[in-house]
Amino acid sequence: MNTSKTADLSSREKLKLILELSSEISATDSIRTMLKKITDGVKNILNADRCTVFLLDEGKKELYSWVAHGLEGVEIRLPVFKGLAGDVASTGSTVRIEDAYMDSRFNAEFDAKTGYRTKTVLCMPMKNQKGKVIGVFQVLNKNSGVFSYEDEELLALFSGQAAAILESAILYRELKKTFVSFIRTLSEAIDARDPETAGHSIRVGNYSVEIGRNLGYDRERLEILEYAAILHDLGKIGVKESVLTKPGKLTEEEYRHIQSHAEKTGAILENIYFQPEYREIPPAAALHHENIDGSGYPLKKKKSEIPHMARIIAVADVFDSLTYERYYRRPMAFKTVIDKIKSDSGKKLDSECVNSLLKLKVSVVLKTLNSGRENEIPARDLNKLKALTLDQLSAILKEKKENPMKKIFNSYYAHGGTDEV
Amino acid sequence: MNTSKTADLSSREKLKLILELSSEISATDSIRTMLKKITDGVKNILNADRCTVFLLDEGKKELYSWVAHGLEGVEIRLPVFKGLAGDVASTGSTVRIEDAYMDSRFNAEFDAKTGYRTKTVLCMPMKNQKGKVIGVFQVLNKNSGVFSYEDEELLALFSGQAAAILESAILYRELKKTFVSFIRTLSEAIDARDPETAGHSIRVGNYSVEIGRNLGYDRERLEILEYAAILHDLGKIGVKESVLTKPGKLTEEEYRHIQSHAEKTGAILENIYFQPEYREIPPAAALHHENIDGSGYPLKKKKSEIPHMARIIAVADVFDSLTYERYYRRPMAFKTVIDKIKSDSGKKLDSECVNSLLKLKVSVVLKTLNSGRENEIPARDLNKLKALTLDQLSAILKEKKENPMKKIFNSYYAHGGTDEV
Repeated sequence: MNTSKTADLSSREKLKLILELSSEISATDSIRTMLKKITDGVKNILNADRCTVFLLDEGKKELYSWVAHGLEGVEIRLPVFKGLAGDVASTGSTVRIEDAYMDSRFNAEFDAKTGYRTKTVLCMPMKNQKGKVIGVFQVLNKNSGVFSYEDEELLALFSGQAAAILESAILYRELKKTFVSFIRTLSEAIDARDPETAGHSIRVGNYSVEIGRNLGYDRERLEILEYAAILHDLGKIGVKESVLTKPGKLTEEEYRHIQSHAEKTGAILENIYFQPEYREIPPAAALHHENIDGSGYPLKKKKSEIPHMARIIAVADVFDSLTYERYYRRPMAFKTVIDKIKSDSGKKLDSECVNSLLKLKVSVVLKTLNSGRENEIPARDLNKLKALTLDQLSAILKEKKENPMKKIFNSYYAHGGTDEV
Repeated sequence: MNTSKTADLSSREKLKLILELSSEISATDSIRTMLKKITDGVKNILNADRCTVFLLDEGKKELYSWVAHGLEGVEIRLPVFKGLAGDVASTGSTVRIEDAYMDSRFNAEFDAKTGYRTKTVLCMPMKNQKGKVIGVFQVLNKNSGVFSYEDEELLALFSGQAAAILESAILYRELKKTFVSFIRTLSEAIDARDPETAGHSIRVGNYSVEIGRNLGYDRERLEILEYAAILHDLGKIGVKESVLTKPGKLTEEEYRHIQSHAEKTGAILENIYFQPEYREIPPAAALHHENIDGSGYPLKKKKSEIPHMARIIAVADVFDSLTYERYYRRPMAFKTVIDKIKSDSGKKLDSECVNSLLKLKVSVVLKTLNSGRENEIPARDLNKLKALTLDQLSAILKEKKENPMKKIFNSYYAHGGTDEV
């Protein structure tokens, strides 16, 4: 949008620009980008020097903004009852003034801090359809004089629209956050039935995302992959704890009962209505124990019959399981974990997915293990360790000669196996 | 919006009306209402006789619409490759013609069926920001002649906006549907660990909603109440099946372990990020075993200290539990269930909530029990039974004299107790 700094647009042109702006912001995902487009658009259409959109934080009784021209990226917070914007938020009425310094409601503190000189102001509440104030538009210093009644009318036309679009974006984001938090917490609760698998699903979620990222998955597909990975053991709800947490060797029947968790994951997820974009989740989650050579379960699928996401989750699942202790085996040394996964590559596990795992940086694993011991280690050594790939680390751990990386890694890895053999 | 049937509006007026229309539809919840507003608005602004918005059903390769002027409420479905709208959907290009009957793409079938006479047509794809067609605008018969280039331009300005708003509404609805389906299915899976409680959470959800509705809850609060009710036994994930499904008397320790499910529900739900409107869910769900006389658990809260929603869920929970068999007791006759609940009213249970339960129609209970035997019973008798309140039914069941309602009800109630004592 190119508009001159001094000449005003015709009223028809302004209306068209506002319509175009509305289309553009309706189609924006990120709320920050939305706010940036709104402020830039309004600034240009009203031929003003600055525009800020404040959102109301009802809990804290504050107005906040992420974008302000001249102060980009800084979050500004104001008490609701302070300054012109605060006045507009609390009264719900528009303020249009020719000279801010002549108005008692104006708070000059901000100008004093930034060296800006506010003159003419158009400050308008952003109200949703129920008439509730959800934010405030603050437009400063019209380039061609003072804000007119027509400017006010124009902004009013746009303001309801902006409120509705912002509110619906916020609602969506909140619901998504609730949904994700719900599936994470649920999976954690299910893992926690067995102390030895506590945290497993979330870690498999993290590793799967990193493997997928290495393989070129985009943001949307990474999201779906993460949900499927987090939910892969959901079927354990239907597995008896007596079997789940039985120490030592399982009978054949008990083993089959444990294995049934994969089918059960499928059965539960198939019963859930997933929106079209999420329909890959059930098979991706349920088929994480299939092997590419057909030796897996429950369907004995082979290679490309297994959804790609399920092959990723399989690698992440094996990796996480082997790095932790299990009732039926001692924790495994890290280098042994890597050797085991390499030897299964192309047989049980998809070799492309295994290679993607081996290329993961150690930092990903440390972050996922989240041992909280980072402070005990010199930053330089830690950064060197973090920059290694899992494959490089495994090679170092196998070396006969001394290497400080060995010791540092083991201090992290102490939760499970040990490489100090 | 009042516009003359013949005179066109000025282009500035039309732009303003389109902006207002955008605001209005952005703030609309229901997609049907949104479509109705869009079609009415476009019809008026373009001074046309008819406007239909078709949405694209990608799976079925069909265009469908709920609202068409002159045929309201009827769902119209067209194959994507049929007629002008079909052509526009598949080519993605706008069609503006002066006389439909002179155009080979026009399909006169619909006119033939309805007696309508299509003349001039403006048919435009609705594209989202990625350029994907999500629907089609079909505007028919301009009152003042033929559709102009300006009309096309105006509709194009609005179309992107409408696409973005509709798409975001559809996305939100789909995510909500996914979320609800997820919590329902999860709760069912948790109930199903114990065959005797299968279906319990969903039934408690249904009863709670009906009790809340009787008490004047609005749609938003009923939604929250339903989620809390469905999730009230979530904490059973953390209860051992060996205790959960133990027949006969429990030891004191086992009894405490079972009781811990309420706290566990709270602990899990407290860990979930709930969007602001849903923050009542954790306490409402977790406190369903508190009694208003302070004799409940886990917090021994009294009367108004217990969230109102938790008091409703408590009544629904007791009612559903008593009407089913349990390991530790035989199923209870329905009249005995009602007597038991009445005797607890004002002591353990909130009397207002109990009264609201007693006023429920039998139809609600039959629907929730969903025995599938409706066909075996004469419709007249069944309707008579359904129209009774639970309180009235219980009185009839206590009568010594014969009453056909007794027999009919018992044929439904056979899942649990019997009243044929």
